[in-house]
Amino acid sequence: MDRSASVSRRDPNGIENGAPLQSEDDAYNHATGNKKSDDRVVENGIESIEKIFESKEVPSWQSQLTIRAFVTAFLLGILFTFIVMKLNLTTGIIPSLNVSAGLLGFFFVKTWTKFLEKSGLLKQPFTRQENTVIQTCVVATSGIAFSGGFGSYIFGMSEVVAKQSGEDNFAQNIKIPSLGWMFGFLFLVSFLGLFSVVPLRKIMIIDFKLTYPSGTATAYLINSFHTPQGAKLAKKQVRTLGKFFSFSFLWGFFQWFFTAGDGCGFVQFPTFGLKAYKNRFYFDFSATYVGVGMICPYLINVSVLVGAILSWGIMWPLIENRKGDWYSATENSSSLHGIQGYRVFIAIAMILGDGLYNFVKVLGRTLIAMYHQIYKKDAGAVLPVGVNNSPVNSALSYDDERRRQLFLKDQIPLWVAITGYITISIISVIVLPHIFPQLKWYYILVIYIFAPILAFCNAYGCGLTDWSLASTYGKLAIFIVGAWAGAAHGGVIAGLAACGVMMNIVSTASDLTQDFKTGYLTLASPRSMFVSQIIGTAMGCIISPSVFWLFYKAFHDLGEQGSEYPAPYALIYRNMAILGVEGFGALPKNCLTLCYVFFAEAVVINGIRDLLGKKWARFIPLPMAMAIPFYLGSYFAIDMCVGSLILFVWEKLNKAKADAFGPAVASGLICGDGIWTLPSAILALAGVNPPICMKFLSRKVNSKVDTFLGS
Amino acid sequence: MDRSASVSRRDPNGIENGAPLQSEDDAYNHATGNKKSDDRVVENGIESIEKIFESKEVPSWQSQLTIRAFVTAFLLGILFTFIVMKLNLTTGIIPSLNVSAGLLGFFFVKTWTKFLEKSGLLKQPFTRQENTVIQTCVVATSGIAFSGGFGSYIFGMSEVVAKQSGEDNFAQNIKIPSLGWMFGFLFLVSFLGLFSVVPLRKIMIIDFKLTYPSGTATAYLINSFHTPQGAKLAKKQVRTLGKFFSFSFLWGFFQWFFTAGDGCGFVQFPTFGLKAYKNRFYFDFSATYVGVGMICPYLINVSVLVGAILSWGIMWPLIENRKGDWYSATENSSSLHGIQGYRVFIAIAMILGDGLYNFVKVLGRTLIAMYHQIYKKDAGAVLPVGVNNSPVNSALSYDDERRRQLFLKDQIPLWVAITGYITISIISVIVLPHIFPQLKWYYILVIYIFAPILAFCNAYGCGLTDWSLASTYGKLAIFIVGAWAGAAHGGVIAGLAACGVMMNIVSTASDLTQDFKTGYLTLASPRSMFVSQIIGTAMGCIISPSVFWLFYKAFHDLGEQGSEYPAPYALIYRNMAILGVEGFGALPKNCLTLCYVFFAEAVVINGIRDLLGKKWARFIPLPMAMAIPFYLGSYFAIDMCVGSLILFVWEKLNKAKADAFGPAVASGLICGDGIWTLPSAILALAGVNPPICMKFLSRKVNSKVDTFLGS
Repeated sequence: MDRSASVSRRDPNGIENGAPLQSEDDAYNHATGNKKSDDRVVENGIESIEKIFESKEVPSWQSQLTIRAFVTAFLLGILFTFIVMKLNLTTGIIPSLNVSAGLLGFFFVKTWTKFLEKSGLLKQPFTRQENTVIQTCVVATSGIAFSGGFGSYIFGMSEVVAKQSGEDNFAQNIKIPSLGWMFGFLFLVSFLGLFSVVPLRKIMIIDFKLTYPSGTATAYLINSFHTPQGAKLAKKQVRTLGKFFSFSFLWGFFQWFFTAGDGCGFVQFPTFGLKAYKNRFYFDFSATYVGVGMICPYLINVSVLVGAILSWGIMWPLIENRKGDWYSATENSSSLHGIQGYRVFIAIAMILGDGLYNFVKVLGRTLIAMYHQIYKKDAGAVLPVGVNNSPVNSALSYDDERRRQLFLKDQIPLWVAITGYITISIISVIVLPHIFPQLKWYYILVIYIFAPILAFCNAYGCGLTDWSLASTYGKLAIFIVGAWAGAAHGGVIAGLAACGVMMNIVSTASDLTQDFKTGYLTLASPRSMFVSQIIGTAMGCIISPSVFWLFYKAFHDLGEQGSEYPAPYALIYRNMAILGVEGFGALPKNCLTLCYVFFAEAVVINGIRDLLGKKWARFIPLPMAMAIPFYLGSYFAIDMCVGSLILFVWEKLNKAKADAFGPAVASGLICGDGIWTLPSAILALAGVNPPICMKFLSRKVNSKVDTFLGS
Repeated sequence: MDRSASVSRRDPNGIENGAPLQSEDDAYNHATGNKKSDDRVVENGIESIEKIFESKEVPSWQSQLTIRAFVTAFLLGILFTFIVMKLNLTTGIIPSLNVSAGLLGFFFVKTWTKFLEKSGLLKQPFTRQENTVIQTCVVATSGIAFSGGFGSYIFGMSEVVAKQSGEDNFAQNIKIPSLGWMFGFLFLVSFLGLFSVVPLRKIMIIDFKLTYPSGTATAYLINSFHTPQGAKLAKKQVRTLGKFFSFSFLWGFFQWFFTAGDGCGFVQFPTFGLKAYKNRFYFDFSATYVGVGMICPYLINVSVLVGAILSWGIMWPLIENRKGDWYSATENSSSLHGIQGYRVFIAIAMILGDGLYNFVKVLGRTLIAMYHQIYKKDAGAVLPVGVNNSPVNSALSYDDERRRQLFLKDQIPLWVAITGYITISIISVIVLPHIFPQLKWYYILVIYIFAPILAFCNAYGCGLTDWSLASTYGKLAIFIVGAWAGAAHGGVIAGLAACGVMMNIVSTASDLTQDFKTGYLTLASPRSMFVSQIIGTAMGCIISPSVFWLFYKAFHDLGEQGSEYPAPYALIYRNMAILGVEGFGALPKNCLTLCYVFFAEAVVINGIRDLLGKKWARFIPLPMAMAIPFYLGSYFAIDMCVGSLILFVWEKLNKAKADAFGPAVASGLICGDGIWTLPSAILALAGVNPPICMKFLSRKVNSKVDTFLGS
């Protein structure tokens, strides 16, 4: 899934938004698991990849688009949509799933072609171009699961979340999820981004020679799969992935049996005692987050833990001591006027502080770099040192020449892009207000006029830093459109919907450009990339709402605080919209002051990180990562740290093996648990209830219960 | 602990009684973990062990007995007494702990001497003779934990067990455990065995050249420790043992937190569902029995599982269907007139069938071999092929000569043995009836007249087959003395007490001879062996009752069915005594028929095993092993099979490593969990209760509880 993956990783809801380039690099080496060979090929500049592949013919763009590729992509798309949806609805932390998507895609088609080969039916060998098509398509499909906002803006409109945010819950501020309008909405907004960057691909890839670290990493992964040694390693990795997939799936299944009621099961295990459990410090036996911890850089895991200790270990208990003074003692524990308000709004303040800092930073760098590119023709000066970083006017290497030649062969006419963009814009402007009456047609028109510029900015910034700011643009839209509409005219829904429109355009734009880079490095045709992305997006527009619908129907407490699927960002997004519309009036006492403090803290910490440079920055936690446990508690932080610890010990014991198989193990854990949600949702829908409740009672309560049961 | 260990292993309460020579061999290779080197040294006959040690001087027998050796033995004695006591009181299955005792003894003294060496204070280097002294002493100490009958005859006299056996519970059939009389009883009966075999040691070891597989294995282990490579491997093994010791200890500690009440904790985990749990099929997370499973041969683990499935999976449910017909429906579930009666008496029938078969077999072989020895002077014909199996009149090898010379150097005068035996006998005959008024002085006198013969038989049989029949002799005493005394004169207590007297003599006799063999092979003096055994026995007579007392006071439900410490053999021994005294009248309907069937089955299965020979016998389960889960349920069978499975997979992955470190891992698991019972008993005594209850409820009950707690 390449970049659904990185979409999410680089994107704000994904925690890594806060991560600076350096830790992104970490994550990238982490994810590809074959840093060494990459370095060898890239840095020495002696070995040429295209020389290795010289003997292999590059198929025409039409034959790169095979049916088997799209069937595989469809299946993997479903798998990864489940995973991303689960992550969305549990914590919103989405790690890079590149490797697992790459491995599984390669594995499926390779097995299939081998099978055909043996039976003599194989018409077309499996090429790296076809592999790139699969990656691109899976990314597009599962990317929608993230940018579709099922864990954020769309679900934030629902009644469940509205109830918890506690204000303005009259009908015009609620939009209950239903399959029909979600399909429509996604089809309307998901394709615009594609058309907006197509004309600029040559500028980005060939003229500006942007890096696109994730796209490049994916390309090297795919290239390596198609060399003999690479294929051998991949086979072993797939086997490891399969083992841990099964384990994780069966573990999920096993856990299910013990969850007969609320407060039952392993998820409730008070590993560190009941008191710690009440402050949400416990290990919840989630294979997913142990896997996530293995993929995320150590810094992220530690940041999350630091955030958890700071908030649930220190701040919330202190604030709770002020109960009756700072906030009413009669307030319900989930009310935003009580302790919950501090949790949500301080988290929002940190996320916004971090987002704003990085927005300014990346935008600044983007503008400076563009200025240099256009006026001084001196790219090397500001572009990070890396792939293809040679000055434009130097002689082209064999690799560059061949890639350039193939990249420019299949053109996409400009008129296709422009016509596509305008047609979809007109339809959107007319249809969207029917879906959201609160979102007036002129809001949409304004967004669509500015969108291509923002899309370009994002694609450019992403090429430079591997960092998509899609959800920061989305948050901007929430505040601007929300304030413009105002409370009286359903500003909350208008803001959230505008966020969706904006996020989809901006995020698909950067995705497609990443894919073009991958295609460039694997000699896949831009045309096949474009078609693959369109087909993938269309599949995503159908799969994602369906999967969300399954969750929504199967888990009755979806989105409720303390449940299995609290969907933290849904409440956070909704409250941002409320803030945008209403201002700060409704916050509990001293909350606004604390928000300012933490907003400033986020900015300052980021500033310090940048000032100190790589060497010391890795000891300073990331504000974005710290903010998530503020609201959720630290159980997933503990899972993630367990994952980190496993990887750490493994690396100590056998670094080479840990590097090669760590990501496969992590992916297996994540995928197995993720796909278990499918049968678990089906069981819930079918009304099959687990038979046993594993309950944890204090000694006092237990003796009461024993007396009750005995009598 | 060498043979507390093997005592138990070779002994009836230990499950391996039922095991034929072949699986004993398995267990022996298993236990030593260095079969290869043994074979190399022994079978080729080329390498001479004593040549390797030629340069090292053998210390005098007095300097073999160092204070540090006895301090170490005392500490290890306590450790292994805890472990054996725990095993006694949970299932009665006691695996060979040779390796862990050997490793730990070596480790402690080695560390201590190294420390002294560095500080320049070392007066005497650590020799293999001293090591043998430690082993012998630890074995003697912890052997008492088994032969003292705290899990069988002594505890079988108590009120708790008497209540469950359901008949003849008037005062004269109960003897409540108390420290005073237990100390006295053990001191009176534990030393007789030593004196009874001392005069015969030369005949057994030098003239008959008996094998004593466990003693030989221990000797090779000790010899190997004192070669440079052996010491290196031992160091690694100790490290592994230490790791798993800590893990197992901490796991026990962690589990403790969740056991706030009855029916709480991991021990209650219904791994295979509640229905299976009710039929006692579950994994109870016991590190001890996973370790036991790793040490016991596969055949034993599988036999236990087969027995569990046969009884709890098939027979008991079928018999329960006859409730109201075969037995009264109003009968309490723990009454021996109900379903519990079938469980206990069928298990007894199988144990007796197996015991009788092997008694006849071993006694027969013993007599035939002795006949050949004495009249035909042709030992080789019937002795198993193995160590030192050369005809007596052939030229002695260097090893044999040197060993012989040292073995004969330090004599123990015959008058010491005879005076000792007669003195202790007289005191016993006078004092024992004061402890057990039901045990008349003439019963004891009769026992003491026949005891030396039986002790010699057992020591001889054990030398031949590695198989102590101590508890079979004990059971014979139960029936004979019980019937002689009769119901009216407290036959139950008389029988159980006589069992104790008999078992102690017979078992210490075979132990000491084993130790003489070990000493012979490590050039340790018989005199130091004898002293070490006496000191060890004295320590055991103090440590064992104290440890039992701790358990007895700390765990209030000790000996109750379904509790953490059901002490299965206590009830079984008591019911054997009742059977002996009262006959079969009180058994529920058809129970006697079933008992005959299973008695016959045990004999037939053993016969088939012997007829088929080694190759096929390993696919036929052992009746003795099958009988234990009949009464207890299959939870520990599942633990043991998990242990087997781990070892099996490990052997598949890396046979050499599994062979070298498997026993260390298993020992670590057993020791850690075993020693955890010390703090856990102290916590219980101090009234510190665990804070949390992990409870497992069915969905229906859970919703009731939730309603109750909610209101």
